Amino acid sequence: MNQSKEMKTITLKEIANQLELSVTTVSKALKAYPDVSKKTRDRVKTLAEKLNYVPNSFAVSLRMQKSKTIGVIVPETVHYFFSKVIDSILKEAEKNNYVVILMQSKEDYELEKKQIDLLLNKGVDGILISLSNKTSNLDHLKKIQALGIPLVLFDKIAKTINCSKVKIDDRKSAYEAVTYLIKKGHKRIAHFRGGLNPQNSIDRFLGYKKALLDNDINFDSSLVYLCDNDSDFDDGFKNAKKLIQDHGNNVDALFTMNDLLAIGALNYLNSVNINVPEDIALIGFSNWFMSSVVTPTLSSIEQNGYEIGEKSAQILFHEIDCKFKGIITKPQQIIVDTELIIRNSS
Amino acid sequence: MNQSKEMKTITLKEIANQLELSVTTVSKALKAYPDVSKKTRDRVKTLAEKLNYVPNSFAVSLRMQKSKTIGVIVPETVHYFFSKVIDSILKEAEKNNYVVILMQSKEDYELEKKQIDLLLNKGVDGILISLSNKTSNLDHLKKIQALGIPLVLFDKIAKTINCSKVKIDDRKSAYEAVTYLIKKGHKRIAHFRGGLNPQNSIDRFLGYKKALLDNDINFDSSLVYLCDNDSDFDDGFKNAKKLIQDHGNNVDALFTMNDLLAIGALNYLNSVNINVPEDIALIGFSNWFMSSVVTPTLSSIEQNGYEIGEKSAQILFHEIDCKFKGIITKPQQIIVDTELIIRNSS
Repeated sequence: MNQSKEMKTITLKEIANQLELSVTTVSKALKAYPDVSKKTRDRVKTLAEKLNYVPNSFAVSLRMQKSKTIGVIVPETVHYFFSKVIDSILKEAEKNNYVVILMQSKEDYELEKKQIDLLLNKGVDGILISLSNKTSNLDHLKKIQALGIPLVLFDKIAKTINCSKVKIDDRKSAYEAVTYLIKKGHKRIAHFRGGLNPQNSIDRFLGYKKALLDNDINFDSSLVYLCDNDSDFDDGFKNAKKLIQDHGNNVDALFTMNDLLAIGALNYLNSVNINVPEDIALIGFSNWFMSSVVTPTLSSIEQNGYEIGEKSAQILFHEIDCKFKGIITKPQQIIVDTELIIRNSS
Repeated sequence: MNQSKEMKTITLKEIANQLELSVTTVSKALKAYPDVSKKTRDRVKTLAEKLNYVPNSFAVSLRMQKSKTIGVIVPETVHYFFSKVIDSILKEAEKNNYVVILMQSKEDYELEKKQIDLLLNKGVDGILISLSNKTSNLDHLKKIQALGIPLVLFDKIAKTINCSKVKIDDRKSAYEAVTYLIKKGHKRIAHFRGGLNPQNSIDRFLGYKKALLDNDINFDSSLVYLCDNDSDFDDGFKNAKKLIQDHGNNVDALFTMNDLLAIGALNYLNSVNINVPEDIALIGFSNWFMSSVVTPTLSSIEQNGYEIGEKSAQILFHEIDCKFKGIITKPQQIIVDTELIIRNSS
């Protein structure tokens, strides 16, 4: 091990000296980092081959640079959807002989930034992240890319960064759920939306709105309730109370941004003897396990957390593998299918 | 960085040569590993001081040996209790500037063994583990200790290994729940127990049994149902069906090993119009979030996953800190309090 390391160090220096480049540039060129020009990369590779830096010591040096560790950042671990994502990421990592450093941003942008720095300091080979609801500045993600570290966003992505992404079609899924309610004869359909920032919250709202408009139902903004960044059980309970105060029985259905909001709302409606689905039909989003055991059972959209984690990890490991082989990859965008699960609440 | 590394390497060798010891032994002695005798440790430290290996380069070398990484193994990540444990471990790690490599054993002993090896290869500074239900041979844990790596067991512990442990008093908690049912007038109390191997499953069963005996109620083994290693919703549903087939209405209460079993049982009882709590009172264990939103709401025992994770991590970081300072610590056993939460099911 030590000997290979020394051989590598000497040879890198030799290449650097002969080409009048820095050792860093040579090292980056051999690893096909995007911030080294193709011309420089080619010069380095040609000389590396000439000096017998390939095939063996080259392979060894590349192998030695791998930390066999990836970093994963999710907003929350106490969260059914993300726990399924983590489950499948861990499984894929194991298959690839990788370990996973797990972090949670707690929906805190500053913490997310700090965590990225920590992961970069640890020398991880790649990073998987689902962004916090408060993330809008993406410099910390651009930093990962500038270092040539593969990056895959999942679920809570940002549109304006050019990397691989794995998500569902939030707009289409919401559209289907609301269309189902309309087909069942509902016209006064309320929506509990998530915060203003997260893309999935925006897209679910837009899907809701489009379903109304496509079916000639007036969009009434007073039926849309903005939930705070947690969008949890208490939020659902509180907003259901407001909804009934505001609209009495002039509302016949409710579509929520997630299942926790729906179950909070259900709890309030049950507590004041408003019948679900007879008085108000209800559909959630994400299909948490508990949705199948509440009374009445909750209709929801299966978000396939398991598949989202699996696909994200597979793409990341592919990109890591290509990088260490010097192959440049193009970002992929994967849309994972969802499924509307109809239970007793609608 | 590189310079300090080299200084350290040379000095370690010098000490080793002068004392006719291996570099490994010297390194271990400086880190106060228990497998190096006190005599050798003292000889090494004396010479290290003489050669000016202290205070600065010593501190640097110690600092450099830290990976600032701990390993955490849980049986499952898609699990409300463990997700709370992970939440608080991550928080403690962050406070201590540590990162966490997370693994799940999936209740598989061979996998757990392999994961320990992986963590040791990664050079983690300490390991937190909740054992798989199938773990009875503890050689893999002894290996961690032989290497002088701090180890803390939590929740699913093994009695026969001498390390720090954080858990609840399962026997006492179960005893309290069953005593509550008895005080409410129930006499034919069934129990859905977990597998035969896990200590917490054994202890909850023993607490159940003792409560009966202390209250002069005959222990009837036909009222105890053995659940398989998953002890999940389906298991609860299936065993509730069996319970009613076996005992008809000659059973008036049920205490289960966990909430998923209780909610599975509740689902079966609801489906055949057996009223909870009127016909059969029900108490679960662990107080999963969903227990507060099912109908009727489920009585349970709050297991304080958050506190268990927090205490375990605090002890581990304390032991790591002591180790790197050359202070030998004694294993601690912490019992975290539980609380019987009475809701509508009992």
